[in-house]
Amino acid sequence: MNGAEALLTTLSESGINTCFANPGTSEMHFVSALDRFPGMRAVLTLAEGVATGAADGYARMRGAPAATLLHCGPGLANGLANLHNAKKAGVAVLNLIGDQAHGHRPLDPPLAAETENLARTVSSWTRTAADVHSLGNDAAAAVAAARSAGGSIASLILPSDVCWSTGAQPAVPMRPASRASVTQQAVTDAAQALKTAQGAVLMLGGHALYGKALVHAGRIARQTGVRLMAQNGNARIRRGWDSPEVHRIPYGLAQAAELLSDVHTMVLAGGRRPVLSFAGTDGRGRPEREDMQTIAFAGAESDLEDALERLAAHLHCPPAMAAQRPAQTEVAVGDVTPAGLAQSLAALLPDNAIVIDESISFGRGIYAATQHAARHDWLQLTGGAIGCGLPLSVGAAIAEPDRRVVCLQADGSALYTVQALWTQARERLNVTTVLISNRKYAILFDEMKRMGAAPGSASNALFELADPAIDWMGISRGFGVDCARAHSMEDFNALFQKAVAQSGPFLIELVA
Amino acid sequence: MNGAEALLTTLSESGINTCFANPGTSEMHFVSALDRFPGMRAVLTLAEGVATGAADGYARMRGAPAATLLHCGPGLANGLANLHNAKKAGVAVLNLIGDQAHGHRPLDPPLAAETENLARTVSSWTRTAADVHSLGNDAAAAVAAARSAGGSIASLILPSDVCWSTGAQPAVPMRPASRASVTQQAVTDAAQALKTAQGAVLMLGGHALYGKALVHAGRIARQTGVRLMAQNGNARIRRGWDSPEVHRIPYGLAQAAELLSDVHTMVLAGGRRPVLSFAGTDGRGRPEREDMQTIAFAGAESDLEDALERLAAHLHCPPAMAAQRPAQTEVAVGDVTPAGLAQSLAALLPDNAIVIDESISFGRGIYAATQHAARHDWLQLTGGAIGCGLPLSVGAAIAEPDRRVVCLQADGSALYTVQALWTQARERLNVTTVLISNRKYAILFDEMKRMGAAPGSASNALFELADPAIDWMGISRGFGVDCARAHSMEDFNALFQKAVAQSGPFLIELVA
Repeated sequence: MNGAEALLTTLSESGINTCFANPGTSEMHFVSALDRFPGMRAVLTLAEGVATGAADGYARMRGAPAATLLHCGPGLANGLANLHNAKKAGVAVLNLIGDQAHGHRPLDPPLAAETENLARTVSSWTRTAADVHSLGNDAAAAVAAARSAGGSIASLILPSDVCWSTGAQPAVPMRPASRASVTQQAVTDAAQALKTAQGAVLMLGGHALYGKALVHAGRIARQTGVRLMAQNGNARIRRGWDSPEVHRIPYGLAQAAELLSDVHTMVLAGGRRPVLSFAGTDGRGRPEREDMQTIAFAGAESDLEDALERLAAHLHCPPAMAAQRPAQTEVAVGDVTPAGLAQSLAALLPDNAIVIDESISFGRGIYAATQHAARHDWLQLTGGAIGCGLPLSVGAAIAEPDRRVVCLQADGSALYTVQALWTQARERLNVTTVLISNRKYAILFDEMKRMGAAPGSASNALFELADPAIDWMGISRGFGVDCARAHSMEDFNALFQKAVAQSGPFLIELVA
Repeated sequence: MNGAEALLTTLSESGINTCFANPGTSEMHFVSALDRFPGMRAVLTLAEGVATGAADGYARMRGAPAATLLHCGPGLANGLANLHNAKKAGVAVLNLIGDQAHGHRPLDPPLAAETENLARTVSSWTRTAADVHSLGNDAAAAVAAARSAGGSIASLILPSDVCWSTGAQPAVPMRPASRASVTQQAVTDAAQALKTAQGAVLMLGGHALYGKALVHAGRIARQTGVRLMAQNGNARIRRGWDSPEVHRIPYGLAQAAELLSDVHTMVLAGGRRPVLSFAGTDGRGRPEREDMQTIAFAGAESDLEDALERLAAHLHCPPAMAAQRPAQTEVAVGDVTPAGLAQSLAALLPDNAIVIDESISFGRGIYAATQHAARHDWLQLTGGAIGCGLPLSVGAAIAEPDRRVVCLQADGSALYTVQALWTQARERLNVTTVLISNRKYAILFDEMKRMGAAPGSASNALFELADPAIDWMGISRGFGVDCARAHSMEDFNALFQKAVAQSGPFLIELVA
């Protein structure tokens, strides 16, 4: 058995069955081994940022890692921005990075790069396979590392001789480190704070934002009257008419400070103390009151379901009540506006949708408006590295083929990883993309205004996408995804209803 | 004067007047300062790989650095693959990387990343600006570093407070380290080897492949009868009917070994001992004879023009002779084939064109066929990180607006950085792209064959771009570049002649 075969066997026995790939020459033996392992689904992407973002989306929905297959240091580099987002999301990704054969690297061939150093910038576990005999163990250790701490990034670098050599042995799957339980003292302290502190909130993050953990958080909120909060960008939040409301900290300082103005105590359950994306020129980096007290109840890597269940029990919270589904709300009509889009989405989201939100400034109101919409999961940009939306939608759709993915995608951000549309088409994924086309980096106009400057000709040239305007119909069809334009909310309502009902991908250019 | 203004003043006085940009919030003060410095041309790119590849193309043609403007660690990460190519090309690039304010970074905001560690993987000089007062000096030092050793990568990281704070001073430009002269002993030794050694070749690289250095190399070749050689992928080679012939080491081992079978001595003048892109399973990493002797005459960072001029003088080489321009050759007709494309390009290349060659496997014969074509420069993939062609064409066209850029671009590689087409359209660049559309990663089929395996269903799925086929007309027009399809060499000949005669960009999809 050669190294590639032992690697694939070990991955398969460890439960890894999906690989988002952009291979090159150094990965040929791995690819050839795939021909003999039909259990591994290899999904081709045209650029590595699509592969890594898709692995992130997959892990957010499955709670388990997919593999990526990347080509040497530069291929990994192309995927780093979305690995940065995955790292901030706290999800599991297993990177397989082909590289030069051990004997060849010292000759400094063209593709020799600092592959390990690049991997370490985003990974909690990085290893270069030393030898074909240990490759099975390397693979098992990599999977365990990816599954540890609730989800981590593990990078296994594969010099090609390790894959082509024979004498390899698959390894038995290793058990990932189990999540730590919080102490009973932490439960008692958190309960005390929630019961007695003035303006307390429960700050959720990571796995506390969906599943049973969120149900317990909702019970606590109902019993104590505290609000549930989360940071601005989150890996996944369960939402809709029967989920507890989670208030996200707004992006802007003024709005965030307003929301937190009466919060004196913040109990952290998977979440962390808020931080602004960027400091203002006054140096202020946090939006909350200076006297706000923080109680570290449970970290993102701990067993949050257990922690919140015990906290709810300690607070004598009654079981979650059955909610009553509200009547469907009205769609918006008339001109395309941020409020109109939010209103129509609230009315039209299909049941159990997965919403990918990279709508940036235009879409800021959609979250609040959809709280009582159909049940859905809400996945966001977590690390600020724009270009995550279309790739996340690929991964989420592959993880959950029976659910509808709705990708709310700003145009400027879409363009970093627009190649993802092709993988949507090739894999016939059930993704409806709402491409918000305002033909500018609108957030940068906002930022410049915030710093008190008016954009001049150079700034305008760097913020405007209007000369030439991107023809999204050409690009979407060019990558194989059927599409149409909406110039009014009536157009949008009709197109969206049709798109979410049909099989496969569709892109609606919402002309703002 | 704030930091951004002092930075721009220093760059301008250091001769930096072009910036390939993809800015974000942390770069807003720099962008605002651009509004007051019309001397700096800021060119917007839709993805960072376009910005860094364009800076590479600009530097190859100008022999001087452009700046890039990148957003935090993830923005830099997106640009690393083409910086890897630029590093291997040995050209000058000055990266300006915005980042979190000094006080904000410790709070770990979403975009906090290992920016310095990322920069170091490709840069010979990396510095994070510590203070507004030293920023002018930082900028001057960065430019000098980029200009050193014949061209290097310098990365200056700009925490945003350093740009927004006042009290900055521009700095006087610093003189880059001058290139080392070779010793007279090295000249004597090289001359001796070229005169007496059996099957000697002169291995050129870097600045020895164009300009007066190449003229001197040609004189030496004519006088001694030695062949001029270069590695497979080079930053820039001057070619055409009045340039000396430079034999590139073929990509494949068999062809490379054949070319080098009678080479017993290799004199290095900017070039280095050949190395294969990838080792074979037999572990062989070099194509030359085992007994080949290498003479290190002049490194890529040395003054190659001086070195070759002195070597020519020592060998009593007569001045270069005036060549006679050959009659125009015939175009190819009939089916689209690699040989047909090579033949038509040899006949139709416009005078003084800049040819960007990322044609990968389909275009391997074009180089040899165009030796006696119109004068041109030939720019290639140097570091194996595919996705350089369209960005290089952007930078080359901006560096040399009066020359025609002809981009020979394979389809698979084009898709990594296809966003470059938009910058071609926006800046009305004189780029004619020949998009070789064979709807597959052809090189990977070759590689798998070479390893003795037949592609199965998984391999085919990872190598084929055919389901769905990319509609290049939609994509090119979608990004604003007019285009047409060529299904025969007659189509191609007509379209190419028209495209190179008209102003602005045009894309020809050559359906292979």
